[in-house]
Amino acid sequence: MVRERRVVTLTAHTSYVPSYALDAWWTPADGTAGTEVRDASTGELIAQASTSGLDIAAMINHARTVGQAGLKALSLHERALILKQLALYLQEHREELDRLNLATGATKRDGFVDIDGGIGVLFTFSSKGRRELPNANVIEEGPVEVLSKDGSFQGTHVFTALPGVAVQINAFNFPVWGMLEKFAPAFIAGVPTIVKPATPTGYLTEACVRLMVESGLLPAGSIQLVSGSARDILDHLDYRDMVAFTGSAATAHGLGKHVNVTEGGVRFTAETDSLNAAILGPDATEDTPEFTAFIRSVSNEVTAKAGQKCTAVRRVLVPAGRRDAVVAALAATFDSRTKTGDPRAEGATMGPLASMDQLRDVRDAVGRLVAGGGALAYGDPSAQDAVTQEGKAAEAGAYMSPVVLTWENPNAPAVHEIEAFGPVTSVIEYADVDDAVRLAAMGGGSLVATICSHDPAVVVALTQGIAAHHGRVHVLDRDDAKTSTGHGSPMPHLIHGGPGRAGGGEELGGIRAVKHHMARTALQGSPDMLTAVTQVWHTGAKQSLAGDPEFGGSPENVHPFRKSLAELRIGDGFASGLRQVSREEIQAFADTTGDTFYAHTQPDAAEANPFFPGIVAHGYLLVSWAAGLFVEPAPGPVLANYGLENLRFITPVAAGDSIRVTLTAKKITPRVTDEYGEVAWDAVLNNQNGELVATYDVLTLVEKEDITYKNW
Amino acid sequence: MVRERRVVTLTAHTSYVPSYALDAWWTPADGTAGTEVRDASTGELIAQASTSGLDIAAMINHARTVGQAGLKALSLHERALILKQLALYLQEHREELDRLNLATGATKRDGFVDIDGGIGVLFTFSSKGRRELPNANVIEEGPVEVLSKDGSFQGTHVFTALPGVAVQINAFNFPVWGMLEKFAPAFIAGVPTIVKPATPTGYLTEACVRLMVESGLLPAGSIQLVSGSARDILDHLDYRDMVAFTGSAATAHGLGKHVNVTEGGVRFTAETDSLNAAILGPDATEDTPEFTAFIRSVSNEVTAKAGQKCTAVRRVLVPAGRRDAVVAALAATFDSRTKTGDPRAEGATMGPLASMDQLRDVRDAVGRLVAGGGALAYGDPSAQDAVTQEGKAAEAGAYMSPVVLTWENPNAPAVHEIEAFGPVTSVIEYADVDDAVRLAAMGGGSLVATICSHDPAVVVALTQGIAAHHGRVHVLDRDDAKTSTGHGSPMPHLIHGGPGRAGGGEELGGIRAVKHHMARTALQGSPDMLTAVTQVWHTGAKQSLAGDPEFGGSPENVHPFRKSLAELRIGDGFASGLRQVSREEIQAFADTTGDTFYAHTQPDAAEANPFFPGIVAHGYLLVSWAAGLFVEPAPGPVLANYGLENLRFITPVAAGDSIRVTLTAKKITPRVTDEYGEVAWDAVLNNQNGELVATYDVLTLVEKEDITYKNW
Repeated sequence: MVRERRVVTLTAHTSYVPSYALDAWWTPADGTAGTEVRDASTGELIAQASTSGLDIAAMINHARTVGQAGLKALSLHERALILKQLALYLQEHREELDRLNLATGATKRDGFVDIDGGIGVLFTFSSKGRRELPNANVIEEGPVEVLSKDGSFQGTHVFTALPGVAVQINAFNFPVWGMLEKFAPAFIAGVPTIVKPATPTGYLTEACVRLMVESGLLPAGSIQLVSGSARDILDHLDYRDMVAFTGSAATAHGLGKHVNVTEGGVRFTAETDSLNAAILGPDATEDTPEFTAFIRSVSNEVTAKAGQKCTAVRRVLVPAGRRDAVVAALAATFDSRTKTGDPRAEGATMGPLASMDQLRDVRDAVGRLVAGGGALAYGDPSAQDAVTQEGKAAEAGAYMSPVVLTWENPNAPAVHEIEAFGPVTSVIEYADVDDAVRLAAMGGGSLVATICSHDPAVVVALTQGIAAHHGRVHVLDRDDAKTSTGHGSPMPHLIHGGPGRAGGGEELGGIRAVKHHMARTALQGSPDMLTAVTQVWHTGAKQSLAGDPEFGGSPENVHPFRKSLAELRIGDGFASGLRQVSREEIQAFADTTGDTFYAHTQPDAAEANPFFPGIVAHGYLLVSWAAGLFVEPAPGPVLANYGLENLRFITPVAAGDSIRVTLTAKKITPRVTDEYGEVAWDAVLNNQNGELVATYDVLTLVEKEDITYKNW
Repeated sequence: MVRERRVVTLTAHTSYVPSYALDAWWTPADGTAGTEVRDASTGELIAQASTSGLDIAAMINHARTVGQAGLKALSLHERALILKQLALYLQEHREELDRLNLATGATKRDGFVDIDGGIGVLFTFSSKGRRELPNANVIEEGPVEVLSKDGSFQGTHVFTALPGVAVQINAFNFPVWGMLEKFAPAFIAGVPTIVKPATPTGYLTEACVRLMVESGLLPAGSIQLVSGSARDILDHLDYRDMVAFTGSAATAHGLGKHVNVTEGGVRFTAETDSLNAAILGPDATEDTPEFTAFIRSVSNEVTAKAGQKCTAVRRVLVPAGRRDAVVAALAATFDSRTKTGDPRAEGATMGPLASMDQLRDVRDAVGRLVAGGGALAYGDPSAQDAVTQEGKAAEAGAYMSPVVLTWENPNAPAVHEIEAFGPVTSVIEYADVDDAVRLAAMGGGSLVATICSHDPAVVVALTQGIAAHHGRVHVLDRDDAKTSTGHGSPMPHLIHGGPGRAGGGEELGGIRAVKHHMARTALQGSPDMLTAVTQVWHTGAKQSLAGDPEFGGSPENVHPFRKSLAELRIGDGFASGLRQVSREEIQAFADTTGDTFYAHTQPDAAEANPFFPGIVAHGYLLVSWAAGLFVEPAPGPVLANYGLENLRFITPVAAGDSIRVTLTAKKITPRVTDEYGEVAWDAVLNNQNGELVATYDVLTLVEKEDITYKNW
């Protein structure tokens, strides 16, 4: 089924947009009838798209076999690093993407959001993947649960990659970002992708996939592309697979009721458009910086991408009596800043809609909004004024100007239900904060809401009221007006999606998105078996200790600080002997550090304390002494102690008590880009009676090989 | 619609099992035709169940209004504490539950799992809720993401309660545990419950709900009960609500395809029976402790609750050649230990199935298994031998003895697809570890698998291979054979559920289950607004500092260690002045603590270190000094420093450098059961140039009122 690859260019009008299947480019047989794809501004034919003859079942099988195997051969960090290399490659080879972007109707600025935004997602996930995940293929999720009194039976959770394929179905409005934001977490998780872009702008996605393939960075089978219809793709999927869908609610509903979702267990997640609100707080009167920021935010959301964003502001909620002021301010902004036109023409600041079909749909929706009670307060949805390239007619492009509707009845169902997916927004008034909450929730679940207020009480009440109805709440005020990334911009660090009308899905959100592509499994067993599976040492598991034979150390074992990562094994450790603490030493520690807290210095006050027997040693003394007990001072592969985690003091240590420490290599994370890595050590302090004094993790940097101090 | 409550007893044959709606007991009009509920052993009529005339829509509305309001008036900790009180109440008033348990066909031991297990879930969630959650109604989930260079725009995530109702549909096999394991996390989250038990054993659930109501502990509207059919309940739900279903796959599929799930956004989670496997490792030969543990585990799973457990072992995977030995060992165990009978009769160790309908279903399934290639190796599914109460006929009870099938063809679809929901299991052979993985996955997604092996390599390979196909993996070997809580027992700490055939849902798992009842929302804004909403101080938010005016302290502010929880506010803090570190002090610290690590003591070695400029102060010196800088030593409401979190050393401190510390109250958690609570303090160390030296959280216990040292 593999055919020669055809390059899509803006002049090759009769070509097909290629698919990428089984690690080869594919186009349908010449003469196959396809869907026509046209330039949004000029209406000129760019290409056709068809999947007639494409073997989707073979693609899924390829992903599950070749794709899975190739990804599994790499670790989470290795895959994360590839994303960074891929981002750099795309940055260097982006000219064609920039050129094709303009054909979709997107301005250069819109393209920045789509293309640079997409590349940015790769960078963010690459960095987070290496910083926040283990360099392994299993992720343990705590807390560890001790399920037997003697600790011999414990439970924990592990994430492992889904054993199938991630089918990613994207919307037309962000052909690059939409693909990369889904691809990045799937790739890190180790799940192969089949990407299915929306046909009207799929040629831009294809150009990006082509660069990704040409980079040579991606393992075989880790990405495939369906250019054109993939209507029956769900027929081939089961519980091993997932489908991440972005697009219209109607399409999402059709997919969501597929028997392989409702019975077969395909993980299905949807992100659909919603009637997002921006709420102007009662405190944000016209003379406040919040009012200015609000108008700027709403007008940006109306015009960016010609309003074709699932996150755009469709409902502007303002305090009673402030509607006219808001409309006037929006109108002034549009008048002075917004000029619809061909993104390649001088002076255009807002592009056309993506296609003439979209233009028809949006005009139709505005008509229904008016029929439902909306009044046109700004703009003319039927006008097709635009600056064009020389010789091109405005009528050939899907041009529309900003439109603002106002509503006498804020409860009119239409304003909360009908979405015009273009530069269209509605302004309604609310009576008080409770009413604003109620109206915002009438959207039936939204991706995002902006709360514009500098009054914490208003922000708290609105947020608590609307949070569960929204995937994201964006608080705008004078303090973040200049630095906010905007109402409409999903960030890779934060979840994107929302309940109800917004599709009920959850994407992005940093490492959460990686885990969306993995199965979470409870794991029960002995500490040794938990350690073997997770590669994280669990309390009670085997140790190989150097140090004091009385406490488990063996003279045959080398101190673990003398071992590089090449030699160090999980469970290697050190057991110290006991060191007694005297009243004088506690006082001396108080004197030198200045920590003269009464529990360490005043016997009567210390005795009155409900937790202490009397004067006790400082917690800081204990951990400092513990370091003295476990340290191997000579230069070696341990480079630094960069931190400490989860320190808990359990049994107080009084004068006359003794402490000892057991240090065990718990987690070893060699870096893929450095000559060293992180080692977390489990530290346990006991007293002379074996009672637990303190537990914590010591974080160190250790060389992969003993280099710096090899001949020291 | 409220009627007088009718008590169900085993002698009141003509009564109806009451529902509990709108905070009142309800039964249908006399003479209403209902479903007959019968004693599993004697076949005697216990009661009828009918919802004819019950206003389900009114119940849902009651939950969303009265129920939500009552729960919202309490904090997460307050609700968690009520669960403990409820558990104690149930423990004290359990006689009727124990009596009714026997009527369901469950033995006393089975009842221990159901009733004590259910009460145990309340205790576990109560304790975890208060230990692991904030004492508030919003849960922040990190990490905090700084989204602007100057820190003025940040992002985080918050969990807030779902604004609707949790509809909990349970299976007949665990009428008490099944209800409580779903109710507990919903209640802590603040979501009202409507519980819908399976009709055959719903009278036991009703008795438990009756005790819960009588306890007087639950806010109005927080629990309602539907006794009988609730077929149209989904018609009334939307994206604010969730449905947690346990039962047959067929029913789950019917519910899952309801338009209010596929389009309306109802959160639907299902836990259905699955063909769980127990895998005997190649190393677990007959002479090993693992073999003994394996036989005990499998035979327990066949006989406990007469095999009517979603987690029971349906497929026993053994190495090639070991099938006969396993069957013989199982047979010997059943022969010596298992006697089917009325749980109230002397000598019975395994009860009947729950009803004659169940008996028919299980016999039918065994018939299909045999038709599909299984051979009866132990037991006779048609025999109805049993010990009974005097004067009762075995034929009147749903009695069945253990049945073991063997299979010549381990790939026969029937053994991986047909579930006999009774004391029935199948033994098949695998060739090697990869084959065992493949066969286990043929179940199409299961709740749990046992891996019985003492060889870590086997355990790792099997676990990595099957984890993504299972909700839980239970590793059994000589080290945990005595302490394991068992293959079949979901623990409240660990997730319960599984992919594919197992329903795709996830329940329990400690605090995860609470969050299943909450919405996760991304929150963006200035640090002040994030602080206001989360009640956790965010870096950059307003502070009210005592201490050194040069670093933001004001002489008008009291040291925060002088404030009890009644006075302390988020953002209160202390700014110290600078303290210089000398080479001599570093050496003295090394000498007294014993921490003579080369970076603190050997100038040439320290200089060779890639991270240090030369000799640097110990991290432990820095945090010890910092305590000296921020401490207010006189007795007061601060009782103890019980730990430290997230310590990171950023800029090294060399001799001659100075440090200062800023301490800010970050999170305040008053305990509901003590006169004190936890305060987490944000600690930041800077050097004389303002560079970041270290950051961490200091954990302290602080009195609610200044009591202990009031007149000190």
